Amino acid sequence: MKRIAVLSSGGDAPGMNAAIRAVVRKAISEGMEVYGVNHGYAGLVAGDIFPISSRDVGDKISRGGTFLYSARYPEFAKLEGQLAGIEQLKKNGIEGVVVIGGDGSYHGAMRLTEHGFPAVGIPGTIDNDIAGTDFTIGFDTAVNTAVDAIDKLRDTSSSHGRTFVVEVMGRNAGDIALWAGISSGADQIIVPEEEFDINVVAETIENDFKKQGKSHHIIVLAEGVMSGLEFAEKLKEAGDMSDLRVTNLGHILRGGSPTARDRVLASRLGAHAVELLKEGRGGLAVGIHNEDIVESPILGTAEENALFSLSEDGKIIVNNPHKARLDFAKLNRSLSR
Amino acid sequence: MKRIAVLSSGGDAPGMNAAIRAVVRKAISEGMEVYGVNHGYAGLVAGDIFPISSRDVGDKISRGGTFLYSARYPEFAKLEGQLAGIEQLKKNGIEGVVVIGGDGSYHGAMRLTEHGFPAVGIPGTIDNDIAGTDFTIGFDTAVNTAVDAIDKLRDTSSSHGRTFVVEVMGRNAGDIALWAGISSGADQIIVPEEEFDINVVAETIENDFKKQGKSHHIIVLAEGVMSGLEFAEKLKEAGDMSDLRVTNLGHILRGGSPTARDRVLASRLGAHAVELLKEGRGGLAVGIHNEDIVESPILGTAEENALFSLSEDGKIIVNNPHKARLDFAKLNRSLSR
Amino acid sequence: MKRIAVLSSGGDAPGMNAAIRAVVRKAISEGMEVYGVNHGYAGLVAGDIFPISSRDVGDKISRGGTFLYSARYPEFAKLEGQLAGIEQLKKNGIEGVVVIGGDGSYHGAMRLTEHGFPAVGIPGTIDNDIAGTDFTIGFDTAVNTAVDAIDKLRDTSSSHGRTFVVEVMGRNAGDIALWAGISSGADQIIVPEEEFDINVVAETIENDFKKQGKSHHIIVLAEGVMSGLEFAEKLKEAGDMSDLRVTNLGHILRGGSPTARDRVLASRLGAHAVELLKEGRGGLAVGIHNEDIVESPILGTAEENALFSLSEDGKIIVNNPHKARLDFAKLNRSLSR
Amino acid sequence: MKRIAVLSSGGDAPGMNAAIRAVVRKAISEGMEVYGVNHGYAGLVAGDIFPISSRDVGDKISRGGTFLYSARYPEFAKLEGQLAGIEQLKKNGIEGVVVIGGDGSYHGAMRLTEHGFPAVGIPGTIDNDIAGTDFTIGFDTAVNTAVDAIDKLRDTSSSHGRTFVVEVMGRNAGDIALWAGISSGADQIIVPEEEFDINVVAETIENDFKKQGKSHHIIVLAEGVMSGLEFAEKLKEAGDMSDLRVTNLGHILRGGSPTARDRVLASRLGAHAVELLKEGRGGLAVGIHNEDIVESPILGTAEENALFSLSEDGKIIVNNPHKARLDFAKLNRSLSR
Repeated sequence: MKRIAVLSSGGDAPGMNAAIRAVVRKAISEGMEVYGVNHGYAGLVAGDIFPISSRDVGDKISRGGTFLYSARYPEFAKLEGQLAGIEQLKKNGIEGVVVIGGDGSYHGAMRLTEHGFPAVGIPGTIDNDIAGTDFTIGFDTAVNTAVDAIDKLRDTSSSHGRTFVVEVMGRNAGDIALWAGISSGADQIIVPEEEFDINVVAETIENDFKKQGKSHHIIVLAEGVMSGLEFAEKLKEAGDMSDLRVTNLGHILRGGSPTARDRVLASRLGAHAVELLKEGRGGLAVGIHNEDIVESPILGTAEENALFSLSEDGKIIVNNPHKARLDFAKLNRSLSR
Repeated sequence: MKRIAVLSSGGDAPGMNAAIRAVVRKAISEGMEVYGVNHGYAGLVAGDIFPISSRDVGDKISRGGTFLYSARYPEFAKLEGQLAGIEQLKKNGIEGVVVIGGDGSYHGAMRLTEHGFPAVGIPGTIDNDIAGTDFTIGFDTAVNTAVDAIDKLRDTSSSHGRTFVVEVMGRNAGDIALWAGISSGADQIIVPEEEFDINVVAETIENDFKKQGKSHHIIVLAEGVMSGLEFAEKLKEAGDMSDLRVTNLGHILRGGSPTARDRVLASRLGAHAVELLKEGRGGLAVGIHNEDIVESPILGTAEENALFSLSEDGKIIVNNPHKARLDFAKLNRSLSR
Repeated sequence: MKRIAVLSSGGDAPGMNAAIRAVVRKAISEGMEVYGVNHGYAGLVAGDIFPISSRDVGDKISRGGTFLYSARYPEFAKLEGQLAGIEQLKKNGIEGVVVIGGDGSYHGAMRLTEHGFPAVGIPGTIDNDIAGTDFTIGFDTAVNTAVDAIDKLRDTSSSHGRTFVVEVMGRNAGDIALWAGISSGADQIIVPEEEFDINVVAETIENDFKKQGKSHHIIVLAEGVMSGLEFAEKLKEAGDMSDLRVTNLGHILRGGSPTARDRVLASRLGAHAVELLKEGRGGLAVGIHNEDIVESPILGTAEENALFSLSEDGKIIVNNPHKARLDFAKLNRSLSR
Repeated sequence: MKRIAVLSSGGDAPGMNAAIRAVVRKAISEGMEVYGVNHGYAGLVAGDIFPISSRDVGDKISRGGTFLYSARYPEFAKLEGQLAGIEQLKKNGIEGVVVIGGDGSYHGAMRLTEHGFPAVGIPGTIDNDIAGTDFTIGFDTAVNTAVDAIDKLRDTSSSHGRTFVVEVMGRNAGDIALWAGISSGADQIIVPEEEFDINVVAETIENDFKKQGKSHHIIVLAEGVMSGLEFAEKLKEAGDMSDLRVTNLGHILRGGSPTARDRVLASRLGAHAVELLKEGRGGLAVGIHNEDIVESPILGTAEENALFSLSEDGKIIVNNPHKARLDFAKLNRSLSR
């Protein structure tokens, strides 16, 4: 393989730039040329493609976001979009593609591979909700950003004896809430993977102030459960909440200079994706498992260890979906009193 | 004066602990004893008062919030509350008081002084909206926290070509928005002190993306104008806002380790408050003006340079109210295109 | 077991406070009482022991250092010291001990266990050089602190086209240098586990500036190799180094609020140490392996998976010593050009 | 004036990029074109000059260092160098120049003005040692970086009961040491502007540990006094220093994302420099005084308020040299016990 392309797709995440840098530098060190694609699959179809040099990614490892821009582009699920993208790859002499993004992005990589252009996916999202990897690029940074913010909220909540509901991102996954909750010494963590009783939540608040002598109360709520505002409404119905505040950390979690761990992870995954392409292998997603870099087929059978299978009626089945660490929720209950 | 007390009142702010430390250490170095009062005027009335040593404030200079806790306590505006507080001061042999807080707190200090217990106010609030000082303790930290968060939002907004409305605190003052807006390279800053036309705001967004070739658009909105959600509603009515997001930085701005400037300011103001009490002077608020530490009468005539005067019908008049730097708004308009 | 003690020993590390908090809270949740010991084994022998409540560790999770203080105390290697410590344990009715520290601390834990007081070790050091765990508490924070500092040095080095030698801690281990080096995009990483040729180092610098067109050059050097000043001397002998600077990040790496990962690790390890003591088990060190919390015998045979064995002549043998990730060094060479 | 150039000179400082951005954006908003010059006066002479657009400075406000690079270039003090620079200005149709740097850079600006090319200086250095301004761009950031590092050292020093000597930059000025010392609660601050007795320093350490019951001791030392290593040597001669450590914060202080205050200062100064050039005025340096933006003649008489005068024998006299705040040193002595 002489020339490959790299693009970022879906929601952006800290460390995507570090992954792009790794892809570019590793490919060049292996004698390949690298082209960047702006705006994900949309840019691929539109031909927003250009050569990237080793110097172009200098000082990018520490930058948040993605300098190749990212976009959601559902049109790439259709054959027409894919063929238009392939036309552009051919025109630019590109033989393989690295896609950094979430599982939506993986399906595009699968299609390109099926059309004869090996493509490899790299898991980039703060939500940590992708099969085939213990951790996604951006997760560690997002958790640390959340913890930093909650540490600040704790200053003011303990000054005033307040209760705070802190909503954090994570789509349907509770990972950010669980890690940030334990790390910030949250009094309660509410995630979509675990049932909760709003009356017990309210009683715990009351008990903590009255019997435990706590000077503040912080509840970390995953957005997958409901919004912070809705949660606060329910809480007020369940008990006397005289000084309750809601904060949504929102998109702050998506930005910022990546942590060391995200930079290392991005560097390792980017380099490994290039190694796979060099061997002509595509239709794979790279990941980290037990501190080792691994790869899995994106589509296939469960026996092949593929991330996704197709049912007989064409529906996508997620094999071994990522699971939240509910042992963390339990641990936190014993450490927060 | 042999023994003084210190309390924090109103909304907490980063640097309040540094001010308490300065009061304690300075007073001890001048041969006085210091008592702390928990929970502001409420704690004063309730007798939540205890001696503080020099060691008790060790390592407090870097901590956010206030370890004496803070509270709003409107009851102290009434004579009954004041007399109850004075009873406690007498019981503990306290002859003077330092109050760290906003202008509501100053009125309590005025009353104590009138009753024969000299009290000095120190301006502690992130909002920078207090007469008699160029800057309040906590303002510089809040601005830096806001800038740090907006820098993160910029990562993700530029990755996606998004428009962000970022709501920041400040009560009726636009100071945080103006300083944070210039510092973060905001595209537009909306403050209560300046009229705005929502149609112009919408046109500016459109123009920036289309004609200026900008990859993102960030509007910093002071809470004193309206909420971010309301503003976004109006914006959607005024123009095509396909990818508009709203973030409220909220209480995060109230927390965190204080910046160097806030720590220096708190140290200087705290020490000066003690010097005034040592001379038996009360009914004053300290502040910084042109880098020098100054004091002003809390209540009096405009000629006396007092912060507040009383009109004939007993209403409070603010002499020389703090003014937002509207030249910053103008400057930003020339730097953001 | 009704009552346990916790102490920190050896060099301090960020996250030790989080571990102490976890030990205290977990033990209380299991119905045990907890005593703190100041100044490590020295304080144990001196009887500097006091009860700790759940509230005493409130807000400690985010603090750097150890509020129980730490100290090196070689006297505890002798029987006399151990017996004096046990006397104190008896006097205070303490039945088990948690020791947070490096491998020196583990030997004390072993001795206490042999004397009938089950003790469990928790790996706390920034150096990541302890057997029986993939990561030590404090390592992730130290790496991030180093990366933050090197990012700053890069600003000024690229402004001036300078070469920087950055010395980082790690005792005989290159872990901090390797992780911080990859994360900061270092141009070269020098660690004790890998040979280097100073002439090749000098040639690489020259080549990077001249042929690669780089605007700066950063070498991350592990202290286990030699000091930064010595290294710079050798470098000047090997080539023309017109604008070479040396920075030793030093003790800064030992401080600071712990990262999320260190807080989670400390929380999990602390809780598990208590679970082991509750079962009456001692002479063990806890650790993390492949994201799971595990325990190993401190002393025993290699077959028992013990961390240390004794040779026939009484020397300590380290079974499966922690190994630096030399694949990271190799990876960095392909990503830094 | 239709076209101006901007360059950075001397040691780099955080906020230089923000100043360049302000110069570029303000000039464009005033209808002028802007050219950038790489590597300061050296690049001017070498013709390393290129047009800069408004987009080129997008996202630069938050970056440390200077993207125009900086260099010391003593050759520009000679007529020959100046004429070569002017040749380049002519060739590129440039009519005025903005120079960001220290006072060495100001002299070049003076010369260009004398040759008919109005030039304005902007004070950019972390040292805060330039006449004509209360604060230089980069100073606030450097102080906060130092405070952040000393906060970390405090964690480990208080864990171990250690004494730390922390050397900070500042050339011959004690400003960074004074501000960082007060802010970090340093036990002693040693600056070049104030005499000190090493025996008193040693006694204070001993007294603080023994009589004041302090758990650590931090001395902030300005590099203008002597190096930290030298100081430690003298300290060991003066008293028993069993656990003394030395840290040199070094070049870390020159890097990092600028604080809000430095960004605002840089924005205001950059815009004002352009306003002066627009009026055809040169030979001036801008600065901040009592929160207002001002300008001063670089060379002239003391009556003209010029920064520098020439004595009859051609020596440079600094009128109103910047003075360190020795009242801060005094304040710190009363707050650190």
